[in-house]
Amino acid sequence: MKIGLLGLGKMGANMARRLSRGGADVLVWNRSHEVAESLAQAEAHIAACASLTELVAKLPSPRVVWLMLPAGDATEMALQQLAGLLSAGDIIVDGANAYYKDSQRHAAELEERGLRFMDAGVSGGVWGLANGYALMVGGGADTVAEVTPFIKILAPGPETGWLHCGPVGSGHFVKMVHNGIEYGMMQALAEGLSLLKGKQEFGIDLAEVSEMWRHGSVVRSWLLDLTAEFLKSDQTLDAIAPFVADSGEGRWTVLESVEQGTPAPVMTLALMMRFASQGKHEYTDKLLAMMRKGFGGHGVKEGI
Amino acid sequence: MKIGLLGLGKMGANMARRLSRGGADVLVWNRSHEVAESLAQAEAHIAACASLTELVAKLPSPRVVWLMLPAGDATEMALQQLAGLLSAGDIIVDGANAYYKDSQRHAAELEERGLRFMDAGVSGGVWGLANGYALMVGGGADTVAEVTPFIKILAPGPETGWLHCGPVGSGHFVKMVHNGIEYGMMQALAEGLSLLKGKQEFGIDLAEVSEMWRHGSVVRSWLLDLTAEFLKSDQTLDAIAPFVADSGEGRWTVLESVEQGTPAPVMTLALMMRFASQGKHEYTDKLLAMMRKGFGGHGVKEGI
Repeated sequence: MKIGLLGLGKMGANMARRLSRGGADVLVWNRSHEVAESLAQAEAHIAACASLTELVAKLPSPRVVWLMLPAGDATEMALQQLAGLLSAGDIIVDGANAYYKDSQRHAAELEERGLRFMDAGVSGGVWGLANGYALMVGGGADTVAEVTPFIKILAPGPETGWLHCGPVGSGHFVKMVHNGIEYGMMQALAEGLSLLKGKQEFGIDLAEVSEMWRHGSVVRSWLLDLTAEFLKSDQTLDAIAPFVADSGEGRWTVLESVEQGTPAPVMTLALMMRFASQGKHEYTDKLLAMMRKGFGGHGVKEGI
Repeated sequence: MKIGLLGLGKMGANMARRLSRGGADVLVWNRSHEVAESLAQAEAHIAACASLTELVAKLPSPRVVWLMLPAGDATEMALQQLAGLLSAGDIIVDGANAYYKDSQRHAAELEERGLRFMDAGVSGGVWGLANGYALMVGGGADTVAEVTPFIKILAPGPETGWLHCGPVGSGHFVKMVHNGIEYGMMQALAEGLSLLKGKQEFGIDLAEVSEMWRHGSVVRSWLLDLTAEFLKSDQTLDAIAPFVADSGEGRWTVLESVEQGTPAPVMTLALMMRFASQGKHEYTDKLLAMMRKGFGGHGVKEGI
């Protein structure tokens, strides 16, 4: 059982560890070779490769190469390079947070060269090493079957927490929607806790409430678990800027809603609130203040 | 350990059972006396009272009377009646889904007669009997201390799943916000599953996806657990009308957001989508269709 793994970011490195500790031999490549070397030194059954050529040469056929690179340029470049190195029947798994339409295109391009492609939506964050990764995979039945031994190591259990969702693209599609749901659930939870905080005369302890909600309430969830744990150490949040980044999946989910004509108002609004948190509502707010001044003579705060 | 419990709906009846099985003697009263009698016959340590007078007479001082009546008229009437029957120092607990401002008013009114009041937000639905009820209580320290032995039986564990949130009103306030969060989380989850369903060419099995998400995903939650279980038996949902009722708490949460000036956009939108599901967006939709016809000559569907 040998697999190649490209990209040792916070997801990829822990996935290599989980694979190697679960019985696989893992050949790793990373843009900064030192990262690969130090991982290989620290972990049994992991070997560092200095180039994709070396990695491909050391894998038995049919090869399985799992990409955990950033979606976009890094993934595109690696796919192009691998397409020239791999042999017919080899399998590329893209585990990045990629747009499912890109994955469908990649599969079609690689198929022309006789290569097989599988898309894998991977969830689990920094907790995946210990608890396993939720894996949503898309691809042909034979391809998925050949990768399944590795999937069973990565997943929370051999038969739980992973799913062959459907054809190529469906894995990233399901992961995309998963993240869209996550945006909405997070926003609802954060809004509610803010209302509790805003009712100052009640002096509500957010750490106590969120801990209590973990036991028997309707909103109990992993997101609440994480939130409750953090609030125990700090509920001022003074050290955290009110800026919420967004990654591709929230946006793609909204695009999908528009393309399907299927309403997804809460997931859309949760994305819009992230944009607003990024300061991207400021020009709109200036316009609104300007309009209020214009028609009502209301004062405006001076810009800084 | 003796307690009076008023109202044997789906919540109250199971709470009486959990109290009696946990070591309390429970005197129950219900508007339809037969319900109280059949519960008392089926369960040890539960006795049915035909009137509030009888119930009050049979409780030792200081009395603890727990209301699980519908918020509004039923609760108001019971409180008025109890105010005339109870003695100074007795305790009334309102476990209904009441508006926290009503609870504050009730406490003030009862205090004038020397009675003590505690508000308890109760969560757990039909699963509470087996798993316990999440209890969010508000009231004076001495009042809460005297009711605590009963709370510890009702809660998921003696020290978990219940919280003295703060002064009178704060229990119902925290429960209200809990339900507002629930609206948002449910809506996000439902929207996401609908997008999966809408991508017909992928043939995604919603039961399989939701089951998989329960293990290792970021959206794992009790709401997902329930959804996954239901989808296993039916994912056509043909037998379910697209009508989502709402109770007071979603609305009060939005009122609170407006009163505080604290934005709660997703919780608000989730409530608005429920109103829309109730057909209350239909006149707006007719107006929109009429306007499109007016300015663009677009056709309208004929009304039915």
